[in-house]
Amino acid sequence: MPTMRHRITLAALLLFTFELVAQTKPRARELGVPFDGTPGQWNAITDVKGVEVGHTTLISGEGPLKVGVGPVRTGVTAIVPRGKKSNDAVFGGWFTENGAGEMTGTIWLKDSGYLDGPIMITNTHSVGVVHDAVIAWKVKQGVPDHEGYWWSAPVVAETWDGELNDVNGFHVKAEDAFHALDTAHSGPVEEGNVGGGTGMICHEFKGGIGTASRVLSVADGGYTVGVLVQCNYGDRDQLRVAGVPVGQEIQDEKVRNKDVGSIIVVVATDAPLIPTQLTRIARHVTMGLARDGSYAANGSGDIFVAFSTANAGAIALNGPHQITMLPNDSLDPIFLATVQATEEAVVNALVAAETMTGINNRTVIALPHDRLREVLKKYNRLAK
Amino acid sequence: MPTMRHRITLAALLLFTFELVAQTKPRARELGVPFDGTPGQWNAITDVKGVEVGHTTLISGEGPLKVGVGPVRTGVTAIVPRGKKSNDAVFGGWFTENGAGEMTGTIWLKDSGYLDGPIMITNTHSVGVVHDAVIAWKVKQGVPDHEGYWWSAPVVAETWDGELNDVNGFHVKAEDAFHALDTAHSGPVEEGNVGGGTGMICHEFKGGIGTASRVLSVADGGYTVGVLVQCNYGDRDQLRVAGVPVGQEIQDEKVRNKDVGSIIVVVATDAPLIPTQLTRIARHVTMGLARDGSYAANGSGDIFVAFSTANAGAIALNGPHQITMLPNDSLDPIFLATVQATEEAVVNALVAAETMTGINNRTVIALPHDRLREVLKKYNRLAK
Amino acid sequence: MPTMRHRITLAALLLFTFELVAQTKPRARELGVPFDGTPGQWNAITDVKGVEVGHTTLISGEGPLKVGVGPVRTGVTAIVPRGKKSNDAVFGGWFTENGAGEMTGTIWLKDSGYLDGPIMITNTHSVGVVHDAVIAWKVKQGVPDHEGYWWSAPVVAETWDGELNDVNGFHVKAEDAFHALDTAHSGPVEEGNVGGGTGMICHEFKGGIGTASRVLSVADGGYTVGVLVQCNYGDRDQLRVAGVPVGQEIQDEKVRNKDVGSIIVVVATDAPLIPTQLTRIARHVTMGLARDGSYAANGSGDIFVAFSTANAGAIALNGPHQITMLPNDSLDPIFLATVQATEEAVVNALVAAETMTGINNRTVIALPHDRLREVLKKYNRLAK
Amino acid sequence: MPTMRHRITLAALLLFTFELVAQTKPRARELGVPFDGTPGQWNAITDVKGVEVGHTTLISGEGPLKVGVGPVRTGVTAIVPRGKKSNDAVFGGWFTENGAGEMTGTIWLKDSGYLDGPIMITNTHSVGVVHDAVIAWKVKQGVPDHEGYWWSAPVVAETWDGELNDVNGFHVKAEDAFHALDTAHSGPVEEGNVGGGTGMICHEFKGGIGTASRVLSVADGGYTVGVLVQCNYGDRDQLRVAGVPVGQEIQDEKVRNKDVGSIIVVVATDAPLIPTQLTRIARHVTMGLARDGSYAANGSGDIFVAFSTANAGAIALNGPHQITMLPNDSLDPIFLATVQATEEAVVNALVAAETMTGINNRTVIALPHDRLREVLKKYNRLAK
Repeated sequence: MPTMRHRITLAALLLFTFELVAQTKPRARELGVPFDGTPGQWNAITDVKGVEVGHTTLISGEGPLKVGVGPVRTGVTAIVPRGKKSNDAVFGGWFTENGAGEMTGTIWLKDSGYLDGPIMITNTHSVGVVHDAVIAWKVKQGVPDHEGYWWSAPVVAETWDGELNDVNGFHVKAEDAFHALDTAHSGPVEEGNVGGGTGMICHEFKGGIGTASRVLSVADGGYTVGVLVQCNYGDRDQLRVAGVPVGQEIQDEKVRNKDVGSIIVVVATDAPLIPTQLTRIARHVTMGLARDGSYAANGSGDIFVAFSTANAGAIALNGPHQITMLPNDSLDPIFLATVQATEEAVVNALVAAETMTGINNRTVIALPHDRLREVLKKYNRLAK
Repeated sequence: MPTMRHRITLAALLLFTFELVAQTKPRARELGVPFDGTPGQWNAITDVKGVEVGHTTLISGEGPLKVGVGPVRTGVTAIVPRGKKSNDAVFGGWFTENGAGEMTGTIWLKDSGYLDGPIMITNTHSVGVVHDAVIAWKVKQGVPDHEGYWWSAPVVAETWDGELNDVNGFHVKAEDAFHALDTAHSGPVEEGNVGGGTGMICHEFKGGIGTASRVLSVADGGYTVGVLVQCNYGDRDQLRVAGVPVGQEIQDEKVRNKDVGSIIVVVATDAPLIPTQLTRIARHVTMGLARDGSYAANGSGDIFVAFSTANAGAIALNGPHQITMLPNDSLDPIFLATVQATEEAVVNALVAAETMTGINNRTVIALPHDRLREVLKKYNRLAK
Repeated sequence: MPTMRHRITLAALLLFTFELVAQTKPRARELGVPFDGTPGQWNAITDVKGVEVGHTTLISGEGPLKVGVGPVRTGVTAIVPRGKKSNDAVFGGWFTENGAGEMTGTIWLKDSGYLDGPIMITNTHSVGVVHDAVIAWKVKQGVPDHEGYWWSAPVVAETWDGELNDVNGFHVKAEDAFHALDTAHSGPVEEGNVGGGTGMICHEFKGGIGTASRVLSVADGGYTVGVLVQCNYGDRDQLRVAGVPVGQEIQDEKVRNKDVGSIIVVVATDAPLIPTQLTRIARHVTMGLARDGSYAANGSGDIFVAFSTANAGAIALNGPHQITMLPNDSLDPIFLATVQATEEAVVNALVAAETMTGINNRTVIALPHDRLREVLKKYNRLAK
Repeated sequence: MPTMRHRITLAALLLFTFELVAQTKPRARELGVPFDGTPGQWNAITDVKGVEVGHTTLISGEGPLKVGVGPVRTGVTAIVPRGKKSNDAVFGGWFTENGAGEMTGTIWLKDSGYLDGPIMITNTHSVGVVHDAVIAWKVKQGVPDHEGYWWSAPVVAETWDGELNDVNGFHVKAEDAFHALDTAHSGPVEEGNVGGGTGMICHEFKGGIGTASRVLSVADGGYTVGVLVQCNYGDRDQLRVAGVPVGQEIQDEKVRNKDVGSIIVVVATDAPLIPTQLTRIARHVTMGLARDGSYAANGSGDIFVAFSTANAGAIALNGPHQITMLPNDSLDPIFLATVQATEEAVVNALVAAETMTGINNRTVIALPHDRLREVLKKYNRLAK
């Protein structure tokens, strides 16, 4: 009975957990979904060296909604570009395909070209508490910005989990954001009903956190592109997996009258890109989502951020200084990797998420693995 | 031997031509490609009442490239929102998914919210001549702008046909732009190797002009959304038709080392949308292209413009005046129609285009209809 | 001895206060600063009918900075477009001249064209608490959005008061945001060291909140344009008042090595403008600031939002509906009014602000009224 | 009697001309207008090493307008970032303060971050001919783009000279664009009624081409910022010179009922800036114009482009490569120099332009130098 507030210390349980995960939770590829391109070691955003991800998952209560009490099905996810110990910024860019959502910190990200701090993802009504918590976390660490000012414009994004979670109960607290940051880690990334994705719904199946990566060929530079999504968007009928109309084939237990969700996508790469180029990377995320059947409905906040872990230390340099960039002509494999990893990350989220019952005993089913395989087979697209 | 400059008078040949076309040129649906949604009468941008389309097709010469002489494989396409006789503007918006291209007139389109004149599409090195020709055409008609000024910022877009056409020969002349405008017509739209699309290549098959439309249900307002594309983008390997990896299955006679093309997309609707909304419509075009396998490569100019034929006469009204708008909440079916019609228009272009030999005897093959059907069948996606 | 947390109940003290203010605090015009254009009754943003403004001013402690204790010199300002009792949205637009700042809620504002809720301005490190407080305030009122969803993307902006205020002490609480909202009122607007502007610095004088308005001639439609600024930007040397180089003439007690501040500007009008037009209004704010000598330094967050109180109820309408808009050709007097009212609002803030001593006994002097008059006189620009 | 088409060969006449100019045409500073900051050797955009400027001035005919015949008062100006012999690109950015105008090539400039070719400025109805001429000029030189493709998206901007010029006569020809390019030179820049500025009007005085520059202190990097304007905007009443209300003081012979003009501004610098930063530079141009009294009226195309001559050769480099950038924290003096040089360039244009009579014997007077000095003296702002 899920009545306790869970703050699973991922650092401690890492090896155990992922052994367990490996046994019990197949990912999309393992189910036979065919994807193009070569993933990295973990097929996760953490394949980009330095990137760490932490989750705080809050699950408690059941039955009727009582605002402020529960049931609670929410959380926070932290993506830390250079790891939680670093005070260094990364070059970044962002884009909105459809704007019914929030990502704070984007005004300065756009104008400065730098992403200075973690990216946090939570539910819509916890953006503020997480925003201030990021500042407090930096203050606790005693690290002002590179000029010595205590000035912060944290990047905090959201999707809306009010269909399963007591979203007006404001259950996320500052300590939950601290926990996600403090437990951020490299290696495999938990997917599905975790962190900010805990109570999310995608194509009318249970959604949440998903991730994937691509490694470019040596000829293309050997760079890694990693993607993490918090997916909460989509009509059932539109869902395509590997081009197959899976949503039209699996019509059970649809839960939405209209497409009101959102998706936040984070793209990381170690390719040395400048902000103009990262903005373009973010813009290309749209094409990965479209392959899965998204049409970015009016009520959806489809907001994407991209960063590069190259050019470490650049923000603190004085005077004219050298940075490394790729020519625009080298972007094609990175664009394609972004599209492919986004396409796969959403499917990974759907495959990892488990059926959840939330407020007022509302249940959202997980994408049934066997049915997915059946449909892929019907369309001659089952990889194994 | 195609040595004459063709200016086919479409107005005169209309019925005959399209009877002929109907007999000899099946469109994608007729080949059994499954598409969602309901098309309009012509399955064309001209299903939006008032919209007229005209082409000037320039085909002459063969053999080795001689700059300024030929071979010529190019043209101009005119899309006239309220018909060539109207001097009224439409609300519009635009978007760039990837910027290696040109569409003039977008600065004022964005700031004013009005598209005042036709949309012209030609080859990259004929943008200027067509730009001035549109102004001259308006001057010839004796119609200044609604304030009485002879001020124009024509919308002229391009894709690059230098692989088949003597692009540095500047073969498009002002009279070719006039011809496209003067022969613009309602009804069926010629597709494939016509107008601005004459020398274009798409997914390494012969590309060009394509069109499609969707009619919304009465519950959704009964509006029409029409799309016209001039497609010149794409790797073969990425081509998906109805989600099926057609490009990976048909590997013959690939012609490009890299993805250097572009695509211009025009979206028309009679839904009463304001400029903010039309900008969003334009942005959603990306998702239709992605369904076909585009990843908007660095060298591609993926530039889209959307307009609404509602609110006739609004630009000339003085003082506070009434206009009609749909609520944002009603945009979903229009977004989806845009995505679907874009997806289909590209496939229609591929299906309509015919194998062409251009400069230096370079040949680009058409998408073979029988092979397309075979592949669809293999993946259990052949509609009939 | 300012050791108590002040929450002055403006509603109760209104008449008294403004009588007092009228006696003791001259505004820029009354000092003889010449401005073009005709202000409204209050020369304030509240001259736009329906607009209400409320402040919570937090002043306590003195002496050395003790993080979490004080001294506190900060607050919150609420601008409520249709008044605190209304649940109706307004059309809006926004713009960033320089991005070192934050204004949340702008992604959906841009895409939807609607500003749905109040605009809050506070210090940089209180954005989060105010953000969540706005949501809680709406929840308390029992009013979901117009579709019935509890979904909110509040607009919260900030400037940085860490030179006078214990900015890392997080002294602003949810109840302070509630108070600013609950006491929002029409009529005169308190200026200077109040609300979000309490601890702000402008051109190295004490800054804060300022406001001004313009009423258009009947021939131009008779509309009102109101501006409110929270100003915290600027080098002393650059300050121009009515074109006169006041900053170069008054060189006493300069406090900044570099231009690190920001300015938030809110523009209200009753002219029936659509979002595209309001975005342009916001963009023109830059020109008002430039007249005062701003050059929008790198460390400055110059972020502007504009809204129109016309078209009441539009957001809740279903199906195609009528809205009112002005032709673009009618924008000139509104552009000019925006520039003029912005120019004056900053000077009003400087004139109203009083010398303040904050953390570590740091003192920022007010613009000395007598010296201002002397300098204007020297340049033959003293109006009376 | 100005009946001949003038193509003054500047290269040949350079020394003579500018000796003459120095004797006969004082610039604004020489008239005693006070400006802040230190100009470069020529106080011109050409103070940025490598930048070349060429004009073609077309003046012929007088009396009643006969479309296609004249009178002609127009031309073309070419700004070549690295000189006409170079095929190298520069990093660039651009911005629109108000969009009633045209600048082609901006879509790829924004997305690629590179400005590849010259910037051309002409009249509104000659954008096309100049656009194609730039392509033809590159083709003549036998230089494709750095990838070997004959692909071009020339940057061509315009303002509207139809009040003095037979704008619908299309008098600018390709050879006029070639001439401006081929005679582009370093050193002093002709101002006033020359090149694209020949027939322009500014604040209801004769306008045209103006230029100015600033050199930063060694502590700030010693960089140069140069600005060139083609000014055609503005109400008389709004004109401020050095903060002084000159337009309100000199009310003679006003020529416009409304503000219908435009201004194109080009900013060059040798500071090593990346595209994100150059976009910000372009955005700051607005503030310089505002100091002169612009309010960017609805009918005005206020479009700005900025580039950096640093990072020569970067566009042609393969793989990850080093480029040089300044930290954002170093931008302030460059922002300020941009604002100051823009402010001065407009005044230089007004001071250099001479009274002109154009179509239908319409005369626009030059800003009278003696009256300007009188007004500056009245407001105690005459520098000498």
